[in-house]
Amino acid sequence: MATDDPCPVFFLSDSTGITAETLGSTLLSQFPTVEFDRTTIPFILNVDQAQAVVDLIDALVERGQKPIVFSTAVTSDIRRTLGTCTATLIDLLGTYLGELEETLATQASNEPGRAHGLGNAARYQSRMTAVEYAMEHDDGQSLRALEKAQLILVAPSRCGKTPTTMYLALQHGIFAANFPLVDEDFEREGLPKPLRPFVDKCFGLTTNPLRLSQVRTQRREGSPYASLRQCGFELRSAERLYASHGIPFLNSASMSVEEMSAMILQQMNLKR
Amino acid sequence: MATDDPCPVFFLSDSTGITAETLGSTLLSQFPTVEFDRTTIPFILNVDQAQAVVDLIDALVERGQKPIVFSTAVTSDIRRTLGTCTATLIDLLGTYLGELEETLATQASNEPGRAHGLGNAARYQSRMTAVEYAMEHDDGQSLRALEKAQLILVAPSRCGKTPTTMYLALQHGIFAANFPLVDEDFEREGLPKPLRPFVDKCFGLTTNPLRLSQVRTQRREGSPYASLRQCGFELRSAERLYASHGIPFLNSASMSVEEMSAMILQQMNLKR
Repeated sequence: MATDDPCPVFFLSDSTGITAETLGSTLLSQFPTVEFDRTTIPFILNVDQAQAVVDLIDALVERGQKPIVFSTAVTSDIRRTLGTCTATLIDLLGTYLGELEETLATQASNEPGRAHGLGNAARYQSRMTAVEYAMEHDDGQSLRALEKAQLILVAPSRCGKTPTTMYLALQHGIFAANFPLVDEDFEREGLPKPLRPFVDKCFGLTTNPLRLSQVRTQRREGSPYASLRQCGFELRSAERLYASHGIPFLNSASMSVEEMSAMILQQMNLKR
Repeated sequence: MATDDPCPVFFLSDSTGITAETLGSTLLSQFPTVEFDRTTIPFILNVDQAQAVVDLIDALVERGQKPIVFSTAVTSDIRRTLGTCTATLIDLLGTYLGELEETLATQASNEPGRAHGLGNAARYQSRMTAVEYAMEHDDGQSLRALEKAQLILVAPSRCGKTPTTMYLALQHGIFAANFPLVDEDFEREGLPKPLRPFVDKCFGLTTNPLRLSQVRTQRREGSPYASLRQCGFELRSAERLYASHGIPFLNSASMSVEEMSAMILQQMNLKR
């Protein structure tokens, strides 16, 4: 193998493959200088399919490559078949289930699809209702049932309110609204009126003027809205508004929605 | 410990905690009869904070409980400190990093926050753009740039189009639109006109009439829209429409958005 060939990586599962991808990506992110060629193979449902995957991977090994395989297969015969592959195999359940069975003094169920299936129906339904709530309350569109919000994200346009709200709703079932801050709010130096009874639920976002200007330029090139001057004014004003109302806030410039969401949950003391 | 006390579980991280929760929840889902009391502690940033967490957990052990701890801490002194806790500790990086270092013949970076941070900026930006696209194209709201869609979800109202679209956009950066099917489409037995050039991108959802009627009843109780008769008619008509256009489809009644998304990606051959 030429040393600059990307390293083949496989995420294998008898269910969605989400855990294999998450686990594997976390481990691989510790090797930022290595290039990986990733393939997810979900829903491996029987031994024949598992054997076909093993054959595929073994063929790469025979060609001199060094594939890395992450598996979260649960079903024991599928796990056994995947276990025969000659690549580096990281088998999540194989590694840890025995230890957990011992601690819990209980046998594992060995049924696939439990982690990202419907699971607890009430919890799943509350996530779906939270998505609906977030859609209805995106960008200040609706003031209906604002008292039901667990969180109200506020920020000038294009600071990342919408994707952060969606992530919190979809992953954590948080009832989150989001609300734009506009020049009119800054002139009055006050929160938008509908939010005033809910200042304790408010969380602010800010970003860097240059980055905001870049993002807004993609939407409306050359507009006053996208100008560095206007972006700087709005962000300074928003930060002053947060401070004067005691609203906690984050800078979204160098953070992902996942990081912002985790910090917001922690700072607002919201149960995941 | 009374045997019916829930088992305390901790997800620990020097970053968001997402991997610890995903890994831990997958393993715990193999023990459906055990009740767990889950606590996520993200952003453990120094040895003092790590020691405080260890003290908290050790106190539970001294009281006779058997906590289970999942850690994805990367920083070596934090990992070492967490490693002194007396509970059952599942340390993802401790377990596997050595093996990966050997296979890759490279040292791990030992820097936290790489897995769910901004990471690859282009990939992150495309996820955010996909969320924007999904918001704009929810429920047939816009026909602009429909040719940019990688996927168009179609279904009668309340079959799960919106959360599935959002999940695909947010997690996988898929450009997905969704479009409602209404009586008018069924009378003509045709796809809505704007979708006809894009039939290859269409994927259908269906559900069970009883379940649809329940979901619609929450929105408009006692309406013809929520009646079992109307729900049954729409679903039968939709399934016939899918079949006649060769549109693949799934039944959302017993599947989570995660499962539907994984299946849609696989069947539509979309790169994650």
